[in-house]
Amino acid sequence: CLQIQFANTEDKQEFSKYPTKAGRRSLSRSISQSSTDSYSSAASYTDSSDDETSPRDKAQVNTQGSSDFCVKNIKQAEFGRREIEIAEQDMSALISLRKRAQGEKPLAGAKIVGCTHITAQTAVLIETLVALGAQCRWTACNIYSTQNEVAAALAETGVPVFAWKGESEDDFWWCIDRCVNREGWQANMILDDGGDLTHWVYKKYPSVFKKVRGIVEESVTGVHRLYQLSKAGKLCVPAMNVNDSVTKQKFDNLYCCRESILDGLKRTTDIMFGGKQVVVCGYGEVGKGCCTALKALGAIVCITEIDPICALQACMDGFRVVKLSEVIRQMDVVITCTGNKNVVTREQLDRMKNGCIVCNMGHSNTEIDVASLRSPELTWERVRSQVDHIIWPDGKRVVLLAEVMSLLSLFVMPFVSTSTALAVIELFNAPEGRYKQDVYLLPKKMDEYVASLHLPNFDAHLTELSDEQAKYMGLNKNGPFKPNYYR
Amino acid sequence: CLQIQFANTEDKQEFSKYPTKAGRRSLSRSISQSSTDSYSSAASYTDSSDDETSPRDKAQVNTQGSSDFCVKNIKQAEFGRREIEIAEQDMSALISLRKRAQGEKPLAGAKIVGCTHITAQTAVLIETLVALGAQCRWTACNIYSTQNEVAAALAETGVPVFAWKGESEDDFWWCIDRCVNREGWQANMILDDGGDLTHWVYKKYPSVFKKVRGIVEESVTGVHRLYQLSKAGKLCVPAMNVNDSVTKQKFDNLYCCRESILDGLKRTTDIMFGGKQVVVCGYGEVGKGCCTALKALGAIVCITEIDPICALQACMDGFRVVKLSEVIRQMDVVITCTGNKNVVTREQLDRMKNGCIVCNMGHSNTEIDVASLRSPELTWERVRSQVDHIIWPDGKRVVLLAEVMSLLSLFVMPFVSTSTALAVIELFNAPEGRYKQDVYLLPKKMDEYVASLHLPNFDAHLTELSDEQAKYMGLNKNGPFKPNYYR
Amino acid sequence: CLQIQFANTEDKQEFSKYPTKAGRRSLSRSISQSSTDSYSSAASYTDSSDDETSPRDKAQVNTQGSSDFCVKNIKQAEFGRREIEIAEQDMSALISLRKRAQGEKPLAGAKIVGCTHITAQTAVLIETLVALGAQCRWTACNIYSTQNEVAAALAETGVPVFAWKGESEDDFWWCIDRCVNREGWQANMILDDGGDLTHWVYKKYPSVFKKVRGIVEESVTGVHRLYQLSKAGKLCVPAMNVNDSVTKQKFDNLYCCRESILDGLKRTTDIMFGGKQVVVCGYGEVGKGCCTALKALGAIVCITEIDPICALQACMDGFRVVKLSEVIRQMDVVITCTGNKNVVTREQLDRMKNGCIVCNMGHSNTEIDVASLRSPELTWERVRSQVDHIIWPDGKRVVLLAEVMSLLSLFVMPFVSTSTALAVIELFNAPEGRYKQDVYLLPKKMDEYVASLHLPNFDAHLTELSDEQAKYMGLNKNGPFKPNYYR
Amino acid sequence: CLQIQFANTEDKQEFSKYPTKAGRRSLSRSISQSSTDSYSSAASYTDSSDDETSPRDKAQVNTQGSSDFCVKNIKQAEFGRREIEIAEQDMSALISLRKRAQGEKPLAGAKIVGCTHITAQTAVLIETLVALGAQCRWTACNIYSTQNEVAAALAETGVPVFAWKGESEDDFWWCIDRCVNREGWQANMILDDGGDLTHWVYKKYPSVFKKVRGIVEESVTGVHRLYQLSKAGKLCVPAMNVNDSVTKQKFDNLYCCRESILDGLKRTTDIMFGGKQVVVCGYGEVGKGCCTALKALGAIVCITEIDPICALQACMDGFRVVKLSEVIRQMDVVITCTGNKNVVTREQLDRMKNGCIVCNMGHSNTEIDVASLRSPELTWERVRSQVDHIIWPDGKRVVLLAEVMSLLSLFVMPFVSTSTALAVIELFNAPEGRYKQDVYLLPKKMDEYVASLHLPNFDAHLTELSDEQAKYMGLNKNGPFKPNYYR
Repeated sequence: CLQIQFANTEDKQEFSKYPTKAGRRSLSRSISQSSTDSYSSAASYTDSSDDETSPRDKAQVNTQGSSDFCVKNIKQAEFGRREIEIAEQDMSALISLRKRAQGEKPLAGAKIVGCTHITAQTAVLIETLVALGAQCRWTACNIYSTQNEVAAALAETGVPVFAWKGESEDDFWWCIDRCVNREGWQANMILDDGGDLTHWVYKKYPSVFKKVRGIVEESVTGVHRLYQLSKAGKLCVPAMNVNDSVTKQKFDNLYCCRESILDGLKRTTDIMFGGKQVVVCGYGEVGKGCCTALKALGAIVCITEIDPICALQACMDGFRVVKLSEVIRQMDVVITCTGNKNVVTREQLDRMKNGCIVCNMGHSNTEIDVASLRSPELTWERVRSQVDHIIWPDGKRVVLLAEVMSLLSLFVMPFVSTSTALAVIELFNAPEGRYKQDVYLLPKKMDEYVASLHLPNFDAHLTELSDEQAKYMGLNKNGPFKPNYYR
Repeated sequence: CLQIQFANTEDKQEFSKYPTKAGRRSLSRSISQSSTDSYSSAASYTDSSDDETSPRDKAQVNTQGSSDFCVKNIKQAEFGRREIEIAEQDMSALISLRKRAQGEKPLAGAKIVGCTHITAQTAVLIETLVALGAQCRWTACNIYSTQNEVAAALAETGVPVFAWKGESEDDFWWCIDRCVNREGWQANMILDDGGDLTHWVYKKYPSVFKKVRGIVEESVTGVHRLYQLSKAGKLCVPAMNVNDSVTKQKFDNLYCCRESILDGLKRTTDIMFGGKQVVVCGYGEVGKGCCTALKALGAIVCITEIDPICALQACMDGFRVVKLSEVIRQMDVVITCTGNKNVVTREQLDRMKNGCIVCNMGHSNTEIDVASLRSPELTWERVRSQVDHIIWPDGKRVVLLAEVMSLLSLFVMPFVSTSTALAVIELFNAPEGRYKQDVYLLPKKMDEYVASLHLPNFDAHLTELSDEQAKYMGLNKNGPFKPNYYR
Repeated sequence: CLQIQFANTEDKQEFSKYPTKAGRRSLSRSISQSSTDSYSSAASYTDSSDDETSPRDKAQVNTQGSSDFCVKNIKQAEFGRREIEIAEQDMSALISLRKRAQGEKPLAGAKIVGCTHITAQTAVLIETLVALGAQCRWTACNIYSTQNEVAAALAETGVPVFAWKGESEDDFWWCIDRCVNREGWQANMILDDGGDLTHWVYKKYPSVFKKVRGIVEESVTGVHRLYQLSKAGKLCVPAMNVNDSVTKQKFDNLYCCRESILDGLKRTTDIMFGGKQVVVCGYGEVGKGCCTALKALGAIVCITEIDPICALQACMDGFRVVKLSEVIRQMDVVITCTGNKNVVTREQLDRMKNGCIVCNMGHSNTEIDVASLRSPELTWERVRSQVDHIIWPDGKRVVLLAEVMSLLSLFVMPFVSTSTALAVIELFNAPEGRYKQDVYLLPKKMDEYVASLHLPNFDAHLTELSDEQAKYMGLNKNGPFKPNYYR
Repeated sequence: CLQIQFANTEDKQEFSKYPTKAGRRSLSRSISQSSTDSYSSAASYTDSSDDETSPRDKAQVNTQGSSDFCVKNIKQAEFGRREIEIAEQDMSALISLRKRAQGEKPLAGAKIVGCTHITAQTAVLIETLVALGAQCRWTACNIYSTQNEVAAALAETGVPVFAWKGESEDDFWWCIDRCVNREGWQANMILDDGGDLTHWVYKKYPSVFKKVRGIVEESVTGVHRLYQLSKAGKLCVPAMNVNDSVTKQKFDNLYCCRESILDGLKRTTDIMFGGKQVVVCGYGEVGKGCCTALKALGAIVCITEIDPICALQACMDGFRVVKLSEVIRQMDVVITCTGNKNVVTREQLDRMKNGCIVCNMGHSNTEIDVASLRSPELTWERVRSQVDHIIWPDGKRVVLLAEVMSLLSLFVMPFVSTSTALAVIELFNAPEGRYKQDVYLLPKKMDEYVASLHLPNFDAHLTELSDEQAKYMGLNKNGPFKPNYYR
């Protein structure tokens, strides 16, 4: 494994082919405008004006005397703690995992370096890993999404966190480096969301992989990178693909988008949904979630699709299947959730009616051809945080939500965190040889265990198979109940 | 009319019998905590910390040189203007009313004194009245709901506004007085929401009624007061009850609550709706709206009712009809929308499970027995603006949203504003004798006109009756299509 | 009252202006085709082939030795009894009314002559009236809708019934006459559905009105006629308008149509709803019920409306509002529920696509211009009972359901029967002077009582107002809870 | 392949382990009661009384002079033709397949022996195979489900059909034998639904397999048998598993059950859905379809599940997850769709309330322990075709729909027929070696082709990937778009 040289130009290019995460490179402009931020219920989005000093230039110490962290303002810890406590209420699966596994400390000895969004929800995950015995160091996978108070709360309780809202590109890599490169401490597990941390370790500290027992990766992009590495024969530890777990696909994508689409559009634009004409591009799980919610609130929804199976599902679910160009003039809202690029083109943007909202729900910011709007005849006006009005010469305005929705949807993904925690436990404790240098899906049995951890939250009562029934069905009474190919 | 003496004790008591508006008297405590406000998309909820000087003590001048207003900070006008512009997008009915009536200026000569919530939406109404020829002076009907930037934007364009977020009781009446009592200017129309302005004029300036052509009243409470006055023979001008118009009852109550219940709960508590057990008290229009939305997002909803007709509707709509006490232990969320008092009692609050959210969607804050929670064994913790955790000795927390939801729902009521504007035009222009000293409902024809003004926004195409069909149905081709008793 | 002469030409014309009931006059053709009938779950639709003798020419005696009835085949009584028993399961409100009132026999002495559809459901009503003490004689209000077995079952237990499926026009009036004109028996109550019985009594036996305490009328048409009589000063007894009761409007129209539209279309055409494009003409209660059901099963629904209030409701509920001509070419199904005439014209029928289903859900068969299809270039093909294919010269087929749907919807109207029973009890027992020679709506309190009788069927638990709450709301604890103008 | 001896005792037992198809052996009792049948829109269910002679004893000749068929009554052909024409309207995918492939006759030379339900829908499939060049001989896979008129229509146009409604066990195998065993004709393709035909050929005519190019199997049971044969090394030709195709699982199961559950319950029991308490056992695709429809029509639905993933989906979709015993006393309707056995036990049947409907939607009749109800203290009363009332000593009635619903759902499965046709074409034309002696799933590309054939029926417009987009996604522009593991 040592011989892998990751830092050469070729690899770098290979990486840059993949969709980059939400606007990392182009966000410097918007950061200073966050003073009017209010899209999140958390207060962190309102505090940037009080202090313009870079966190890197501040000397901060938590109440335990440690300064091994770098956050916006350690004094916000108490407020962040309150946000974490609120988040815990909807994450009882992790809390119950803590309780079930706390005695045996299945992560005793684990040294986890993590790179994810830093929100109240992920804080619950991190603190669960700690409760199960792990030591954690953490950094942000997005320069924009960190809840500063939450970062402070984590740092206060002793998790070295290196992250703040509005990092520069340079800050971003500096934070990752500080996270990994700690004198006298060496990670044996990597938890990544997007692959940047993994990339950095490959590039700068390949020897770390000698100790690492596995990589757990949560995102499409990161998983894509891991499969590429595997294909190229360069993956030197087992990796667990949490992105394609049932809980992520069926629950976080479908159900959470069902909730976050409404919330996100409402917070950013105050739109009323009743009677609005909406086109949703892509009828995968995310699209299905969006369509269900919008239809339920009285929007008139049509969809675009490339895949006849999804298109036929849309028909049967009561949505007209159209080409975007056929309907673009009438639409009040255009939503993209294809994962593809340039799904909404400049030509289509030109034909939209005044006031049309264009919104990307996909994970990458490639779906709307935003670059094409950076042309001199169009005026950009930032009206709220991450909400832009693009103004045509004739006065027509288009409301652009290029990145904000995918960020907002971070705040409602309670399911995948449980899968991630289980994946960490599994990889860390797996006997030698169970996993090779390859990318693995979460075993179906674990998917089912994740689901079962969530059931008490809904006071749901599972039925148990009788012996006779189990035999008749050819199933084990404790599962797995789904074939491995079930997605 | 002159002989009416309103300021005697008796009348005062008569008034105090009615439900008072949302927490006017008890809110001083919470005002200072609004620094973490972020439930509204508007920025006004985040600025209170920057300046503690009372607006009454500030000397402010707008760019036109006028100082006939009193707002938090006139410099916020530009931001407020942007909020108003956004609001205009969903209020095209008022905009089209402006256009249709602008030539004839039907309100030329009208001097309107108004007392309503001051939000971007009401600003669109006020500016419509101005565009139609009226002079307006305005004040807030609630010490809590003013969007400061919007108030500034109105003041900047020349509407004398006296209102800010977080007024004291004394400020509240001072503002009303400043609004009415202007040297050399006397109102001839009153537009009220809650009856406080009307009350003040009766009490302090009864002679004003000699010139007033009518009162337009938007709220349940205010309408209730007007009917009492009328019954007591003390109503000395015609009054228009906008609250019971079809647009208010069928559209603002049903459809807007359908949208605001989700938005409000999400912003204040981050709850996921899927699988949550919810009980909604009251299955009137507000309750129906809440139930529809929550069910659509996967909540498991049951209802309580006193009225067998509404109860049977709930059954047919697929909701279990229960008594609150039967289910209170299992509920994740309790929502009141009865208009009644003490619908949720202390005993029931004691029996709720940890984390239960209790939320009032009604117009008054009487439905939850909040007073009973002000007892020494319970700890109150304000976690977000207007969101309290009530903590029992055993650690159980109940999340209390006593007032915030009805405020939030202000931001999605585009329909009633149009009715209000039409009511003002009607009363101001009605020939002598059409309206007596009584309370009137909006003529059905006007309800239909309001609806028709909203249709273009949805690209809706009305069908016209043929002569033959009109005759067959016994209808005029231009309406009214509904009998007068239709509600 | 005696001086009323009803049989003059003028009155006859007045009557004939009103929409006539479903196809009474034009149905002779279709009767002989009922051999393939299977749209109803009841067997009566399958037996016409076994016996072509007119019931008028048969001598039949029931097991009690009576021959005072005229039905298709008294031997089918047992099967009909089973159908009635099945119907009782969903009509527990009437059953519980029987139980509550059986001791006091509130209809002792009542002699009711009735003219309604004769189905298992109305049999439950008739037998309830009998259980409460009434003597009943009954006839059918429609030549097509009688369930022969049910008529036999009623006749078997001693209710003189004069009705069969497939009566001629002459039979129809003969049956009514036999029902009214019975030696030694004179009616003191009239229960009518459509006004034909009332018309006949006015015309032939005006002296009957000397004894009649009141008329209870269930249908739009009949009520319309009564109001005309009242306006003309010719109504000589009190009449109760059950058609406009809350239970009929809000429950039977909305909820029952929600169920019967699916059932009816499925039984007659085997259509799958998913993805079908449907236009519903009219967004009243019937239209709302149809749209809700069709949308829920995946149809893509748009509506046409003349009334802006209903049109705006449609928008907010998520339906596009269009003119019929704009969409007619694309539609798979066209449904009328306006109550108007010629809503679907020949021109529009010409433009429909092959296979389009045109279906009338309204109470009259005027909405589709069926007459225009009786032209030589078009071929009619009856494919199932009351289902016609109209074939254009180019081979295009349109599936015409002109009358069948309104008949089908008879089988799911459990609510209005209870109101009818209460109206009979009220009129029969009202003290002298409570009701004059006018048309009355059911008192709101009775509407609420009807609803409350249905609640146990759903295991619904009503909440009771406390004394304090009742006072606060200004309501009596036992209702009425709705204002009288509530519809 | 020749050496396979299928007729030995051991194999027979192996077969009898599997769930047998709907009530083949126990139905003799009910056949004679079909005179009141009306659950299907087709007339065949009403004709049994006219002729009690066994079709085997009749000499019939079609108008072409052929007597190579055995149906109830060849004279019903015209009526059956009309039913087929109606069915064609909703099966435009097969019709368009006919058109696309008619020129090339891809089934020229194919000699197909088929054993399926014989309904108007399958007739469209059979006639499509003929249109594409095949010779077909056909028999019924269920003694109960044949539409006699449709069988007659097929026989009339020259397809040798051996099937009628109400076959005995002996008739059943006689028909299969007559179908296979034809002098001078030998099948080279088998199309089976349930495996009985395949079984018979293995047992009686193993040499036929020398010529057979493949077996296409539509049912769970049949597929199960094929996998067992394959595992045992006894499968001697390629087989295509159509049951697990996406169209069958996602479309026929989910969407068709969504429609057939309502239709079936309505036709058999006249139930109104609004407010009814329903428990659905099993939340797979069939259960999801049932729950969606019932909830949409106002039923209050809860579910039982053994699998935590499906249980959590139910929660998120808004259904309480319960154990059957917890709720059985309150339920109005109990629906089974697990595929398991004894899901509803005698003990639970004993605890149901009066009037409770118990209904099996699964493919086998094992889910309700019907045998336990055949005890002397209970009375069975057949109230309609295949609808039994079971009467307890205390008078309590339970309405049992053990088999009728799965038969009813036959009439709404337009999707899988297209997959079946494609599977036949694929297997018949596959080059040597593409398929071995194994069981294959339909290639994903074909699933997508099936979907695409259905889209024009919905006027759906697919979007095409640009070259750039296809490259970005790593997809071929023409699909497949789904990974092979997508189900």
